[in-house]
Order: sequence, then structure tokens, then C-alpha cells
Amino acid sequence: MASTILNFSADDLTKMEQRFRTQLINSITGFKSVALIGTRSKSGQENLAIFNSLVHIGAHPPLVGMFSRPDSVDRHTLDNIRETGVYTINHIQASWADRAHQTSARYPQTVSEFEAVGLHTEYKDEFPAPFVHESSIQLGMRLAEEIPVRLNGTVLLIGQIEHISLPEGCLLSDGFVNIAQAGTIAGSGLDAYYEIENMRRMSYAKPNRWPDILHTNVKASNT
Amino acid sequence: MASTILNFSADDLTKMEQRFRTQLINSITGFKSVALIGTRSKSGQENLAIFNSLVHIGAHPPLVGMFSRPDSVDRHTLDNIRETGVYTINHIQASWADRAHQTSARYPQTVSEFEAVGLHTEYKDEFPAPFVHESSIQLGMRLAEEIPVRLNGTVLLIGQIEHISLPEGCLLSDGFVNIAQAGTIAGSGLDAYYEIENMRRMSYAKPNRWPDILHTNVKASNT
Repeated sequence: MASTILNFSADDLTKMEQRFRTQLINSITGFKSVALIGTRSKSGQENLAIFNSLVHIGAHPPLVGMFSRPDSVDRHTLDNIRETGVYTINHIQASWADRAHQTSARYPQTVSEFEAVGLHTEYKDEFPAPFVHESSIQLGMRLAEEIPVRLNGTVLLIGQIEHISLPEGCLLSDGFVNIAQAGTIAGSGLDAYYEIENMRRMSYAKPNRWPDILHTNVKASNT
Repeated sequence: MASTILNFSADDLTKMEQRFRTQLINSITGFKSVALIGTRSKSGQENLAIFNSLVHIGAHPPLVGMFSRPDSVDRHTLDNIRETGVYTINHIQASWADRAHQTSARYPQTVSEFEAVGLHTEYKDEFPAPFVHESSIQLGMRLAEEIPVRLNGTVLLIGQIEHISLPEGCLLSDGFVNIAQAGTIAGSGLDAYYEIENMRRMSYAKPNRWPDILHTNVKASNT
């Protein structure tokens, strides 16, 4: 890309208009894993919220992290997770990304975002938190650890995976799941959603050998 | 997708063959922010390593997190960050994704992965850690907090952004950066890299209004 390069220093960032900085910093850190978090309070109130800070922490045990702001709209989710210890992670597909985005509106606690945005709950395998029926990949999670981040008052919630549903056709023989084939989208910034194409898998890297392409669905015109 | 749905319980996950589970769990948590981390030891040894666990933590102050395994090949990176307090985050483009992947090979500590994989260091603005010259979006980071995750012995490193370089054409008027336009790829699993297309931005969500599309570059055939 032969575009002019812009440089921002620490001082530039400090002096930047706040909303501009929020957009810039949220989008500059790379693509985000974006998903819907389904919960149900002890009293039975269902809740659905979009999160874009999911992160793989480990496979043994199978751990997924996400960051929550205690003082934000996400607190219904945080309250329910603390109350019940369980939640679901549901991948988002492009055809209903607008419904997923709409869950970020500040609905009152007595409103189920499932109903408000037109998505459907699904309960299965005796797991107590609601899955999103429309979602092609669903995870059932149990809260394992809550770690406060003192720097900015956020909370890192780490959950252990207790249930996985996925379309059989996306699972490769070695355990890899082609989530693009399941229609999963990626997030960026606060409000951008991307469809994914042109997957390439590479072989395990060793010092004296260049990686091979293991699988690819890159279109001929792009190679 | 009319594919058969596979379900895995907590018990299935526990009994699963270890490498299969590693692939499954690494790919099931959604797309990953993948980038190259550049460091230099006090003695001047440069190091470059691919990380796929970057996560936005906050914009005020501008904080980015990443998880490191103390006992893995990443430890050269971890050692250098602890020693100097600084590192760089460099987005990866498809045209040299093989070089980025190759940095995950277990090179000896005395080898610079920049040289080994054919990428070039760039020093600027008196920032003491090396940027990747080939990368279109580069962040200069200062370690702000290190948080141990007792569940699996990993470490959450939180850094504050002190420098940003990006192509001017990718920066929108409200601060949003279209990282797909800069060629940034997304990761999945341990070894998959995806090109990104069809961006949609949606308006701020409010309870009584459906979100508008703010910007889109979706091709007509896909709408």
C-alpha cells in the first residue's frame, strides 16, 4: 500500500478527542472475536449481550476469557454470570449480524434481548444457560476465575468450556474447526463486522523448513 | 447451513485425544487477533514472535492485553518484555503471512527471527523496540501490568500504547481504522490465517431504533 503513513505519539494519544480515540484504539488492535453471551438470572430473566473481547487462554483445561466493564450495559450479563456461574458463547453469522449488534442497546433489565432483537433461546443437554438457536457454533461455559484489572477497572472472566455444538461439515479430521465455513464473522472497533474468506492453514513451523500450506480455500484469482 | 450438528459434552472434551482437543479448542473460540511481537534484549538481541491472543482492554488509557505461556517458545519475548518494559505489535498482511507463521519455529535465542524469516527491523521516534518494516500497522507498547492466570500458568501482559503508525487512507473521520483495507489478516486455531472482506459498520444501538449501516464495502453480489 503506497498510502502516506500517519504517526501518533503517546502525547498525541493523550491529547486526542475522546470519542475519536475510543474509535481509533478499539480498531487498531486487530480483528476481534465477537459473539453473543447468553445468560439467565436466578429469577429466570434471560439476557443476551454482544461481547468483542473473547480470547483463547488454554486448551488443557479448555479456557476462554472475556473482559467486562462493571459499570456498563454489560453488567446484566456480569450479574447473571456471578449469580449462576454459567453462560453461553454463540458465534454470529452475517445474515443476522444486525440483530446481534442491536443487543448492545441499553434495554432495561426486565427486557430479554432475545425477544427484543428477534433471536430465539435454545436449552439443551441440561445446560442451565440459554444458547442462541440461530447460532451455528455454540459453547456452554462455566465461570472458573474472575480477575480484576486494576489499571482500568475491568474484569477478566475466565470460563471453562463444558459444551460445544458445531456443524459436522466444519470439523476437520485433526480437530480444527473452519469457523469461516460455519459463517462466523469477525469484529473490529465498536461497530464493524467482517465476513471472512480465503483461509490458509500452514504446517507446524520448524527452524530449517519453510511452512507448507496444509489446506486452502483461496480463490484462484487471489493467489 | 443444513449440516448435521455435532455435540461435545464436558466428559467428551476430557476424554478427547490431546492434539485433537488442542486444535478444536483453539479454533472454536472465534477469530483471533494475530500479530508479530517485536522485542530487543538489553544486550541487543532482537526477537520476533507471532501471538494470536491479543485483546483490546480499554481506550482510556489505551490498553492491549496478550497471553503468554512462560514455558513455551514465546519466553524469549516474555524475557525481553520483562527486561526492557517495551515491545511492538505489528499487523500481518497476507502477502507475507508465511514469514510471520515461520517465527513460531523454535529458533535458538541467539537467532533473530527477523533475519531468519526475511523481515526487516525498523526503529523510529526513539522507541527502543523494533517494529516490523513490512507491517502496515505498527504499535509501540509499554508494559503496564503483568497478571498471572493460576488456572493454567499463563500470564496476561497488559501494555499501554505509546506509538501508532498506520496508512492515512485507512483512517476514517471518526477515528475508526479499517484494518481490512490495510491488509490485516485474522487468525484462527494454531495455524490458520484468513483474509477479510465485506465490512459493515452499524450505528450506535438504541432500544427503540434498528441499527443503520454506517459504511459498507460489501460487494453487490453478496448483499
